[in-house]
Amino acid sequence: MTELRHNILTREWVIIATERAKRPHEFASQVPETPSPIFLESCPFCVGNEHLTLPEVMSVRGENGWKVRVVPNKFPALTPTNEHASKVSGIKRSIQGFGVHEVVVENPVHNKIPAFYSQSEWEDTLFVYRQRFEMIRKDKRIQAIVIFQNHGALAGTSVAHPHSQILATPVIPGQVRQRMEIALRHYDEYSECVFCRTMEEELAEKERIIMDTGLFTTLIPYAALSPFHTWIFPKTHQSSFDQITDTQITDLALHLRHYLQKLFYGLKNPAYNFTIRSIPTHEPPNEYLHWYLTIVPRVNVTAGFELGSGMFINTALPEDSARYLREVSIPDAG
Amino acid sequence: MTELRHNILTREWVIIATERAKRPHEFASQVPETPSPIFLESCPFCVGNEHLTLPEVMSVRGENGWKVRVVPNKFPALTPTNEHASKVSGIKRSIQGFGVHEVVVENPVHNKIPAFYSQSEWEDTLFVYRQRFEMIRKDKRIQAIVIFQNHGALAGTSVAHPHSQILATPVIPGQVRQRMEIALRHYDEYSECVFCRTMEEELAEKERIIMDTGLFTTLIPYAALSPFHTWIFPKTHQSSFDQITDTQITDLALHLRHYLQKLFYGLKNPAYNFTIRSIPTHEPPNEYLHWYLTIVPRVNVTAGFELGSGMFINTALPEDSARYLREVSIPDAG
Repeated sequence: MTELRHNILTREWVIIATERAKRPHEFASQVPETPSPIFLESCPFCVGNEHLTLPEVMSVRGENGWKVRVVPNKFPALTPTNEHASKVSGIKRSIQGFGVHEVVVENPVHNKIPAFYSQSEWEDTLFVYRQRFEMIRKDKRIQAIVIFQNHGALAGTSVAHPHSQILATPVIPGQVRQRMEIALRHYDEYSECVFCRTMEEELAEKERIIMDTGLFTTLIPYAALSPFHTWIFPKTHQSSFDQITDTQITDLALHLRHYLQKLFYGLKNPAYNFTIRSIPTHEPPNEYLHWYLTIVPRVNVTAGFELGSGMFINTALPEDSARYLREVSIPDAG
Repeated sequence: MTELRHNILTREWVIIATERAKRPHEFASQVPETPSPIFLESCPFCVGNEHLTLPEVMSVRGENGWKVRVVPNKFPALTPTNEHASKVSGIKRSIQGFGVHEVVVENPVHNKIPAFYSQSEWEDTLFVYRQRFEMIRKDKRIQAIVIFQNHGALAGTSVAHPHSQILATPVIPGQVRQRMEIALRHYDEYSECVFCRTMEEELAEKERIIMDTGLFTTLIPYAALSPFHTWIFPKTHQSSFDQITDTQITDLALHLRHYLQKLFYGLKNPAYNFTIRSIPTHEPPNEYLHWYLTIVPRVNVTAGFELGSGMFINTALPEDSARYLREVSIPDAG
């Protein structure tokens, strides 16, 4: 039997097609691992090659040099030097590509895998995310900041060295605006944050929870768009990512390590994207929007149906995916 | 210089990042062609293996047997036997997977490539699309019909035998509803169909046109989401795909052959998805919504930024992509 489930954050239906379901382990990566060296002479992000990048924006430093380093993207999608100039011709509208596009080099070691960052390595990275978010939002021409990590070629990475990206746009993405409207409508109707309510129901049901601590919950959504599609929600209501506290950073680092190691062992180091969804930067914190982290392991391919409808077909039952990840055992040394 | 362009059909901005642009030919498929046989004993869609599929829904027959054949999908995402029963639990809503999921086997020959269907083979296929669309919409429990073709593994095909799929849903996809609202708002403000207006401007500018005939226009959109993202618009205003006439079918077949051969030679048989976007089935034809065909060659990978914002980064200038395809020469025998 198949069913359609309603994604309450997007008001879109997802087809859960269990008749075509693989068993969870069959989603494991088929890509043979290409072993990487710990240092690569041509890699602009390796220690000793700092001159290959544009001038450093910030870094976290220890006794042995930098631990995390932020540099402007050498091939930026948007640049701070462009003006915020718009052009209209008939029905066609464009804006010069003003914005910020930075790379967070998360580790000096070329072949380090994010799943195996130490607790303090994740904390340093999250601290840098917060700091850059705070700084970039000060530019009033910026409307939204997207922080994301692409892991593996199937997830769109061209550089193997562990890094993430920060892209700040001069517009509010239409999808972000639409989700705000949906969350606001829920708040108007029920006087509650739809994210807080979702967490409450999920924690009561337990079926789709992967990890729950005092400050964060990692779960597979009821209407997950794809196998192992995951949300990490802060349990305290916060709208903007830069409201995250030091204590929360410690706990979020724990969740990321736990989850990414489960993925690594359970699905054989699959490619994935993660992104932090936060309120547009001009909006004051409110009662209805909740920042969170989304992780999408790239274990399937979207096709013509998704293109033509915007709906997704998930060939795995979210409850099964969550149980599978809960039961993956992480070797002690991990 | 990079710029943001406004997609008028979705009201979403697209980042056109020409600084990171490859030259058009560099988007060519890197996947070595795996030669397929003309017949495969295990293929349920091959001639002689008809017993391996569920009972035929319809077919187009010639002197030598069937030419196009429609069968129910053996692993359906939605099935007509399910009821249209919905369930609510807290904020979670679901509907039983009622719907129709059919496979259109477009050719008896296992290794035929859609780019090389003859004129009459494409006409037969389009005729079948129209006929199934007309029949399926008679079921009043169906709200939307999506017809799509996935070509190549990167586009999500699991069966190499040339085929497309028809998936009819018991809900109107949220994205389809949203696009209707956008088109209606444009109609309210300007008393014109936004698609007709787009075509008019594009034909005047010519830069992004790939092919134009009396009845259809093939073009790369001004705010194309990805390199070579393409639209084929009927020039007459029609809302629903099943309004297509026999004469239009002949002309659309010409466009598809021309375009797909350009893709084949210009980008070395890349994977692609195409889909037909039509008005929801309960809606009467109107003045503001226009059916059309979208083709997305899978020459790039979406990543964390797209996930976190819904915005796309296109690393090719639409004008360059269109010019490149216009200039690809198709060998005479093609």
